[in-house]
Amino acid sequence: MADPLSADEITTAATLLRQRAHPTALKFNCITLHEPLKAELNAFLSGTGPRPARRAFSIILKTGTPEVSEAIVNLTAKKVESWKNVKNVMPTLTLDDLNIIEHIASKDSRIIEACREIGITDMSRVYYDAWAIGIDERWGFERRLQQALPYYRSSQHDNQYAHPLDFTVVADTETQEILSVDVRRVNGERTPVPLDEHNYLPQFIKDQYRPERLKAIEITQPEGVSFKMNGNEIEWAGLKMHIGFNYREGIVLSNVRIDDPYENRERKLFHRVSVVEMVVPYGCPKPPHHKKHAFDVGEYGSGSMTNSLKLGCDCKGAIQYLDAVLATSTGEATVIENAICIHEEDNGLLYKHTDFRDGNVISARDRKLIISQIITAANYEYAFYHTFTLDGTYKLEVKLTGMLNTYCLHPSEQAAPFGTEIARGLDAQNHQHIFSLRVDPEIDGPGNTVVQSDAVPMADPVGSPANPYGNGFYAKKTPLRTALQGASDYCHETSRGWDIINPSRLNPSTRKPIAYKILNNNCPRLLAKPGSTVYKRAGFARHALWVLPYRDHEIFPAGQYVCQSTGEENHPHNPTIVDWAARNESIENTDIVCYIQFGLTHFPRTEDFPIMPAEPVSVMLRASNFFQKNPALWVPPSDMVKDVSSRNAVEARELMETPRL
Amino acid sequence: MADPLSADEITTAATLLRQRAHPTALKFNCITLHEPLKAELNAFLSGTGPRPARRAFSIILKTGTPEVSEAIVNLTAKKVESWKNVKNVMPTLTLDDLNIIEHIASKDSRIIEACREIGITDMSRVYYDAWAIGIDERWGFERRLQQALPYYRSSQHDNQYAHPLDFTVVADTETQEILSVDVRRVNGERTPVPLDEHNYLPQFIKDQYRPERLKAIEITQPEGVSFKMNGNEIEWAGLKMHIGFNYREGIVLSNVRIDDPYENRERKLFHRVSVVEMVVPYGCPKPPHHKKHAFDVGEYGSGSMTNSLKLGCDCKGAIQYLDAVLATSTGEATVIENAICIHEEDNGLLYKHTDFRDGNVISARDRKLIISQIITAANYEYAFYHTFTLDGTYKLEVKLTGMLNTYCLHPSEQAAPFGTEIARGLDAQNHQHIFSLRVDPEIDGPGNTVVQSDAVPMADPVGSPANPYGNGFYAKKTPLRTALQGASDYCHETSRGWDIINPSRLNPSTRKPIAYKILNNNCPRLLAKPGSTVYKRAGFARHALWVLPYRDHEIFPAGQYVCQSTGEENHPHNPTIVDWAARNESIENTDIVCYIQFGLTHFPRTEDFPIMPAEPVSVMLRASNFFQKNPALWVPPSDMVKDVSSRNAVEARELMETPRL
Repeated sequence: MADPLSADEITTAATLLRQRAHPTALKFNCITLHEPLKAELNAFLSGTGPRPARRAFSIILKTGTPEVSEAIVNLTAKKVESWKNVKNVMPTLTLDDLNIIEHIASKDSRIIEACREIGITDMSRVYYDAWAIGIDERWGFERRLQQALPYYRSSQHDNQYAHPLDFTVVADTETQEILSVDVRRVNGERTPVPLDEHNYLPQFIKDQYRPERLKAIEITQPEGVSFKMNGNEIEWAGLKMHIGFNYREGIVLSNVRIDDPYENRERKLFHRVSVVEMVVPYGCPKPPHHKKHAFDVGEYGSGSMTNSLKLGCDCKGAIQYLDAVLATSTGEATVIENAICIHEEDNGLLYKHTDFRDGNVISARDRKLIISQIITAANYEYAFYHTFTLDGTYKLEVKLTGMLNTYCLHPSEQAAPFGTEIARGLDAQNHQHIFSLRVDPEIDGPGNTVVQSDAVPMADPVGSPANPYGNGFYAKKTPLRTALQGASDYCHETSRGWDIINPSRLNPSTRKPIAYKILNNNCPRLLAKPGSTVYKRAGFARHALWVLPYRDHEIFPAGQYVCQSTGEENHPHNPTIVDWAARNESIENTDIVCYIQFGLTHFPRTEDFPIMPAEPVSVMLRASNFFQKNPALWVPPSDMVKDVSSRNAVEARELMETPRL
Repeated sequence: MADPLSADEITTAATLLRQRAHPTALKFNCITLHEPLKAELNAFLSGTGPRPARRAFSIILKTGTPEVSEAIVNLTAKKVESWKNVKNVMPTLTLDDLNIIEHIASKDSRIIEACREIGITDMSRVYYDAWAIGIDERWGFERRLQQALPYYRSSQHDNQYAHPLDFTVVADTETQEILSVDVRRVNGERTPVPLDEHNYLPQFIKDQYRPERLKAIEITQPEGVSFKMNGNEIEWAGLKMHIGFNYREGIVLSNVRIDDPYENRERKLFHRVSVVEMVVPYGCPKPPHHKKHAFDVGEYGSGSMTNSLKLGCDCKGAIQYLDAVLATSTGEATVIENAICIHEEDNGLLYKHTDFRDGNVISARDRKLIISQIITAANYEYAFYHTFTLDGTYKLEVKLTGMLNTYCLHPSEQAAPFGTEIARGLDAQNHQHIFSLRVDPEIDGPGNTVVQSDAVPMADPVGSPANPYGNGFYAKKTPLRTALQGASDYCHETSRGWDIINPSRLNPSTRKPIAYKILNNNCPRLLAKPGSTVYKRAGFARHALWVLPYRDHEIFPAGQYVCQSTGEENHPHNPTIVDWAARNESIENTDIVCYIQFGLTHFPRTEDFPIMPAEPVSVMLRASNFFQKNPALWVPPSDMVKDVSSRNAVEARELMETPRL
């Protein structure tokens, strides 16, 4: 509900910060909205408090050094309110930061020699995907580190992931030095460059296209879209919310509320919803692959990596785009056009029933509102679809596509069991994707509790008076009372779910608290072992759910600073969700926040190469005795709705009169 | 690949059977296709054998009795090939059978008295949902049983599920006698009829409609659909299959094969795919609710209960419908018009990648082919969507909607914990829905094996030479070698999957067998306890997966005869999957069949009343190193495809220049 910083606000903040630091030169790592305190904001929203001041939060590096400061600028008062130097932390690597290696590598004699030894002499054909360092014991916070994975391209638009090279590079982002070129030798030998071509761009494969196979599907809304926007506020089908965006989380939905047709009032669902972290740990234990466990939100920023979307490619139908305004390292504003896509889709049956006696049929169609963004994280793409349907369900679907991270196999090696040889000499290693969806619920008010719900058979034996036929089962309810209890895992045997209840509001029929339930059976176990680097750094991924009491500006579960983090507990400037949970505060009937982890374990397939068919994964929050009845009965039945589909459709019925076989 | 019986074939079979039985009068329970032996069929399909004869299979009752016979008619030779009397079995209840109670009940003095006692004197307002008996120890196979659940309607189109009555009825289907009226008393008292109205039809609630909230979405294919049909054969986007239909399973897909663009040949995926059983056990242990565990496929028939579909209501876009031809009890043919819906849908991103260096973007859109049917099983509706996407994935999605089964609460009772009081005095009880999808795979040929795949961390400890950073993990592969090993459960901790491999065909890159993998994390545990009635009768639901060697005409996992079944093992005329598995035959590198169970546990919500928002559940089979590369690279990128969406779309970008809050 607090709008992102405008271009003017960004430059104002930068100017004030530079004045404050003068004559020290600054490199802005981020300049982003500093959200108002929740109490202030809610007071304003409810008409009982003044409009909160606009503030910017900035992470700043002293130019050319790894020295980090945090500052808050009051934009309304036009002053720097706080400035704090922070130690033993490293902020996100911006896209500009990540471009450094490619600019300096081709001149480095160690890299030239490493390439020459495997037969590459044209250095313009060598490309580098820069990554956060992951872990490298050779340096600490005295260096701002990144690693780079080199690839070869045999022509300008060749698929580099077909030609991974067998060395890696470590650089200092701020001093722009190459610190190490780590050449891997197997039995003392270098690995030949895999030179087979595996391309997917039209200039290479257009002969294979079969456009005649698919006739166009046209999706139109001749009367326009069903939603209305007022600035960043959207209203659709009885649902209202604010759409924010920042460099780190990308889309932030807030103040989500729904019109209750039975109680005739607006009811709040979620105070704030966003994807606050993700980790992609790779499962090959052999160095240098242990260094690959990207935290794409925390190390790079989902907002910064956001694609500018294109109609008909990323989304079909009647689309409303929103631009994103971000800050550059020099404190200027930059715009990602069409960063956020807002559109509707038909969602099939909403409900149907046929009275078998008289054949009377009633059915209605469901609709989705989808607020989406797509990010490119070097090789991979992630498409985030925040989706609402007419029954009040919120679903976050993520589609994974793009390119597999690949590595070259020495002739003596095989990919299995830690990877798949997806093409001759190319190893695509096992990995997991674990996302963290942060939901700050206010289920009809701020006092909420999470109750774990397990489907269990009755304890009474078959044939006993209480369970004569042995069919009795029920949902065993366990309130999660403290933050350590709130760290909870999915249980398949009990089809576990979690109800976010408001204990102060009873459903008049059930006479039990109203709830929204979390449906999440898509959280793979973190496969890195306890005590491992990944286990420490990605503490959030240890559980499918964490529940914590709300605290202002406590957002990022792997820490505000993820780059070079060690997962050290009780870090004075960089607490993580493990620290927050260790406070073990009450999470009962209070203002709580849920971190919901979900994702998948990916054993690469040849079908994922040379470009990966989108793989979806999702998590859902659904009304559960929140409304008095089906909240979508206001949707008119389909036969009362006219659409052109019905007029244009093919109706050639086949009467199955002449069996051929 | 064998077409359903035509109307002529049905009447021919009936005539031949009546001649054979003369002068005994016959009631046809089913007359359906007797599928050819697989060896014969495959020989014909491969051009090495003659066209198999057309045959009908019929289950027949001696009119007015529960005496059952099975017959096979050779339609090509026009003769009855076999006739067998079968004992201690009961065939499905047809819709006609289920209508009996409603015709005879209103005159039954016990029912009139049971109604009078709770204040109902107008018997035309009492309706009965007839169900299979479930279990009732008072009678055995000497009676063909059904039970009925009575409801009251205060007006003609009133929602009866708002007014359940507190007695149940047992009838003999063949003699048309009411055997028992079982009145429930709580503390010696009857339960008052819940009289609150909860309606959902337009005549009651049209004032609540908000048509202005949703603008039309029009979906058209001006150039027509992308599939071609030749009789019951469909060809779409490189995929080919036959679409069959019968009274029991409904849709049967067979001979599913795919064009491999890399090997330049057609490759078989599945010999036959259908939903062969489902069970809906209710979890309230108190009689009479223990009798509610409907097997909607085996006790009634998904084909028989199929809706006649309507354009714009059930499906949108360019639709091809197929009719279904079924047999009546008198041996006539009857047609369900528009029983099967075939249509395409846009499926969002197929793949996307942005080259961050030059901003070059490639993306393509995915497409679905959906072959669907919707059934009405008294209160509930189930929509079955057999879905194929361009990456060769098959997904069965089921949407559950319709009406909750309800019961009346005595003032001294509460619904919890075995149900939810969804409206005052109305109990909707906990239940499960467990479906059985039978897939007869022929993954690039008939010799297949299922290999269980478990994602596990390396055993080596963190810091050991083999696993220095503790991140190593892999897919532990366990071939299922015999049918008892093939009875397998999902394991969440290892994200278990199952690869159906062809051990004779290696992927040239991975040098491991090609596979299609089963993705099924949606199989709830059967919550009825071991030894319970449901556990015995629904043996198939004890495991997420069963793998068996193929045998001709071995199809139905709860038995050919489910009505009144006890789950007795080794029944001479009615074996179940438990018996088939007990043979413990080899399932390794042979012609196998997979039974995949999936579904959900439903704790009803007030939102599910008075009509339930559709709840989806699905299972998926996906190529896994089956193709040499992404099999959808023949799909042209989106920017090479023109569609009207792009021309008509809203492009009003908001520049986020003026934050308001």
